[in-house]
Amino acid sequence: MSLVVVGSVAYDGVETPHGKVERMLGGACTYIALSASYFTDVSIVGVVGEDFDSSDEALLVSRGIDIAGLERAPGKTFFWQGVYSEDMNDRTTLRTDLNVFARFDPKLPPSYREKPYLLLGNIQPALQRRVREQMSHPKLVGGDTMNYWISDFREELLETIRQWDFLLVNDGEARMLSEETNLKRAAEKIMSLGPRTLVIKRGEYGAALFTPDGHFTAPGYLLERVVDPTGAGDCFAGGFIGYLASAGVSAADFAHAGRELRRAVIYGSVMGSFCCESFGVQRLRNLSRREIDARFQEFKAATEF
Amino acid sequence: MSLVVVGSVAYDGVETPHGKVERMLGGACTYIALSASYFTDVSIVGVVGEDFDSSDEALLVSRGIDIAGLERAPGKTFFWQGVYSEDMNDRTTLRTDLNVFARFDPKLPPSYREKPYLLLGNIQPALQRRVREQMSHPKLVGGDTMNYWISDFREELLETIRQWDFLLVNDGEARMLSEETNLKRAAEKIMSLGPRTLVIKRGEYGAALFTPDGHFTAPGYLLERVVDPTGAGDCFAGGFIGYLASAGVSAADFAHAGRELRRAVIYGSVMGSFCCESFGVQRLRNLSRREIDARFQEFKAATEF
Repeated sequence: MSLVVVGSVAYDGVETPHGKVERMLGGACTYIALSASYFTDVSIVGVVGEDFDSSDEALLVSRGIDIAGLERAPGKTFFWQGVYSEDMNDRTTLRTDLNVFARFDPKLPPSYREKPYLLLGNIQPALQRRVREQMSHPKLVGGDTMNYWISDFREELLETIRQWDFLLVNDGEARMLSEETNLKRAAEKIMSLGPRTLVIKRGEYGAALFTPDGHFTAPGYLLERVVDPTGAGDCFAGGFIGYLASAGVSAADFAHAGRELRRAVIYGSVMGSFCCESFGVQRLRNLSRREIDARFQEFKAATEF
Repeated sequence: MSLVVVGSVAYDGVETPHGKVERMLGGACTYIALSASYFTDVSIVGVVGEDFDSSDEALLVSRGIDIAGLERAPGKTFFWQGVYSEDMNDRTTLRTDLNVFARFDPKLPPSYREKPYLLLGNIQPALQRRVREQMSHPKLVGGDTMNYWISDFREELLETIRQWDFLLVNDGEARMLSEETNLKRAAEKIMSLGPRTLVIKRGEYGAALFTPDGHFTAPGYLLERVVDPTGAGDCFAGGFIGYLASAGVSAADFAHAGRELRRAVIYGSVMGSFCCESFGVQRLRNLSRREIDARFQEFKAATEF
């Protein structure tokens, strides 16, 4: 079933121990949408500048992504530049030019409003809330956030996530949001803030899922070669919500959809792992559902006991 | 089947965010032996000083541990003191008094030499080799090491592990030993050095097992409260080898004992998790096999998909 994704569409400059790319398509919305497009129909809401390349637009369209909500504004597209550490567990931002993204005011095309699934990528919490309010009656709503909103826009963020069915964060963000060091206690606290389901992404170490019925932990997929981790967390989110949309899971049966939620976490991990294999969105251009399912099975084989 | 464990028997002074203990029983051999004692018969080889408390000796004996190989030498017992960081992922050594351990020359009582299982705790590689040579024909030999031996005694260490069936290290040590950043490639390289099976302990993030038949990854057990991580890696080793000994797995069928090896990794994780719940060996005094198996099942429930 159809999914709406909101977030940044950007150009990135990235350097990792495996090389350097001056400028390539990026942004949370882009990664989430491309990843989810292997599972379900996707419609995006975002803003780009006059410099947005027609070949990048063509890539989104080639994956069946509805770009009716992709606004083209005067000025330049959001640009981010960063460099990764030797082990790629840390990165330093060298440049952030918000450009047209600074005035992003997401407006949903009428055709989007009845859609059942909504994934709010990491943007200002008040904007996330405004998008949510434009939807008629979504079956399932969740999203992502980051340290900056947790520290400097805390009240706004708390008011926003109160309406969500699920929240996706990394361990550091979970600890920051909950003010708890222990992950399990952090999760319990966050779930009392609104989202009844929480996914904590742990990078190369996998992910943990918390629901009112209990928790699920998955190790990371062991990649032989990590080329560029940019977007892996967003690809995780895309695989997670994309799978849930394909399975037709709604908030109403969310608490008892344990099996589907666990599978969604694994599909998220699978998509995040593919993302790391090449620079930018390269690996997401022409994956096949067959490759995705093969890796899902590989995951199963490597974790069963 | 019977297991011989060699390593340090010590007193530790430990400070964590949950408190401070000036002096308590510790040492790799102690933790490994106590942990393994829940699975199989254990005989230890170590050295203590004149200050070794009779109540600590009594604890070992109460767990059925054979202390015929525990030498009592003139002087004081090995003493280590350390303090953990707020998140307990790092620790700083404040004091290391080798004392009688500085002249440790492990000699196996004749009654030990025919025993089938040998776990070489983290001591000088040449001493580990000498112990191995005193055993007649063990069914399965493996051990642990640390960064100091990898960097400063590399050749000696390589010669020692060449004779082992398995090696247990943490991620940092695996990277250091292999000179590879990527964990999967690090594992392949280490396996070419001798040990056909490798277990990489990843602390709170779980463990990875590598065999010629493929790999297995397990997330960490999510503890609500980590009081003191000291000895958790050794308890992992004790649960791992202890389970293999109880299942009668030998080096000959090691490569095809995939299921048992995976279960051994989970039992290792279970024992490591119990260890963290209290200071020192406290939690290992009176566990029951029932509690251990219940946590094994909990692990299964939290990882199946």
